Amino acid sequence: MSRIQQMMTTHPRTDGTPAQDHSVLAAITALTECAQTCTSCADACLAEDDPSHLIACIRRNQDCADLCRVTANMLTRRTDQDETLLKQVLLACRTACNACAIECGKHDHPHCMICADVCTTAERALSDLLQVPSVTPHRNL
Amino acid sequence: MSRIQQMMTTHPRTDGTPAQDHSVLAAITALTECAQTCTSCADACLAEDDPSHLIACIRRNQDCADLCRVTANMLTRRTDQDETLLKQVLLACRTACNACAIECGKHDHPHCMICADVCTTAERALSDLLQVPSVTPHRNL
Amino acid sequence: MSRIQQMMTTHPRTDGTPAQDHSVLAAITALTECAQTCTSCADACLAEDDPSHLIACIRRNQDCADLCRVTANMLTRRTDQDETLLKQVLLACRTACNACAIECGKHDHPHCMICADVCTTAERALSDLLQVPSVTPHRNL
Amino acid sequence: MSRIQQMMTTHPRTDGTPAQDHSVLAAITALTECAQTCTSCADACLAEDDPSHLIACIRRNQDCADLCRVTANMLTRRTDQDETLLKQVLLACRTACNACAIECGKHDHPHCMICADVCTTAERALSDLLQVPSVTPHRNL
Repeated sequence: MSRIQQMMTTHPRTDGTPAQDHSVLAAITALTECAQTCTSCADACLAEDDPSHLIACIRRNQDCADLCRVTANMLTRRTDQDETLLKQVLLACRTACNACAIECGKHDHPHCMICADVCTTAERALSDLLQVPSVTPHRNL
Repeated sequence: MSRIQQMMTTHPRTDGTPAQDHSVLAAITALTECAQTCTSCADACLAEDDPSHLIACIRRNQDCADLCRVTANMLTRRTDQDETLLKQVLLACRTACNACAIECGKHDHPHCMICADVCTTAERALSDLLQVPSVTPHRNL
Repeated sequence: MSRIQQMMTTHPRTDGTPAQDHSVLAAITALTECAQTCTSCADACLAEDDPSHLIACIRRNQDCADLCRVTANMLTRRTDQDETLLKQVLLACRTACNACAIECGKHDHPHCMICADVCTTAERALSDLLQVPSVTPHRNL
Repeated sequence: MSRIQQMMTTHPRTDGTPAQDHSVLAAITALTECAQTCTSCADACLAEDDPSHLIACIRRNQDCADLCRVTANMLTRRTDQDETLLKQVLLACRTACNACAIECGKHDHPHCMICADVCTTAERALSDLLQVPSVTPHRNL
């Protein structure tokens, strides 16, 4: 059991069903990894020989990292959640993950390919939590 | 001319019309102030004699601060903006500002009353930028 | 190999020795987990029946979460690092982790006990990276 | 009286002397402006024709923005402050502002020159709060 899972289990407010809790946990884990990966990809793009071809990739990574971080924090906070707000944020974050997966998928740099894959995983975790179909096509690394 | 306005004017990508730029600038200024005010209100609530009545207020403040900060950053970054994503984030942030204005408006603590007013200003700046009607009723301080 | 490790390996600037890279990776992983755990512990404290006894714990958690997040981001960015600045930030973050481990260690709530342990792990990862002795005494969960 | 000042005045914990409170307020204001300006400068650098000459400038801006934001938040939270930690964070943030002022000062782009000036103001506000001499030489815009 991961530390984040232990924290969720010992939180005084655990109203969710086990299935909901599982989806929330999967989303927090995927978003935390995605935020870190996008921060790394933006920085790696900047260090490439010709960063001017990667401006859009850097921007998608920055937005995706920022939104994944905030969304993971909002999901981690279980006290007095605002469901209407949370749903809008989850949808916006899903758009960011999808846009970043598509942009990173256009570039051959290994860090972009890994990042596209991690963004796809995050988009799916959010779609699963929202109970909507995933929008990101499968990529084979 | 404020520093943020100077930075916008000297940015190599300034595609917007003056009217759009004015709305963007007003939104960045309102969101930056709102993030700071909500951080302060959450902390002031925590320091009150009986914080247990203010749990919902603290939570709304935390979410609003997080979203205002990210939204201000996304508006500040002018390079290769993703309009679809930006619109979803602006709408989610507007929901957060409105929810926080309503919750803070329920409490008599002076910091809550000021914060409700600042959240209302931010909600209006976002509604103006999105060209949609404001949802937050007027409060008289 | 974790995603963060894959990203480090494929980054165009990997000047470090394998031993340094190992310590950086361990620190990023520990700090990311610590930021998430402290965010969760602060929120769980707020949801307890009498949060007024946990104000200091909430504050230590907030500071520790903020600093762990920024420090992890600075370690993740490998391009043109400022070693002098990085060292000061690592030391400040280590102080935050230690202070949060001590405060959480005073409370019997299971989320506080887990959080104290995660903060201790983060403090040790930072001490290891800085090549200074760890300051946090061992806790047995 | 600015909103941030109003929030400080109505906070239930206002232990500081008026002189200390004035320095804290000046620092929060300067750091908030600096975080926003550095975010804008990093993005403007990315949009320049040849961003590869501005990699160090982008990195200094990113670190400075992150640290100014966290430091402003820690100063804004008045409840149960950890003075030892706060001082270390203020010193690290001062190093970041100074390093960013120096790097931005090397470039002729107007956004870099404005940013160098804002970083200098922030460094001085931090030095004033810490009651140590300022390290950043004066720049004339």
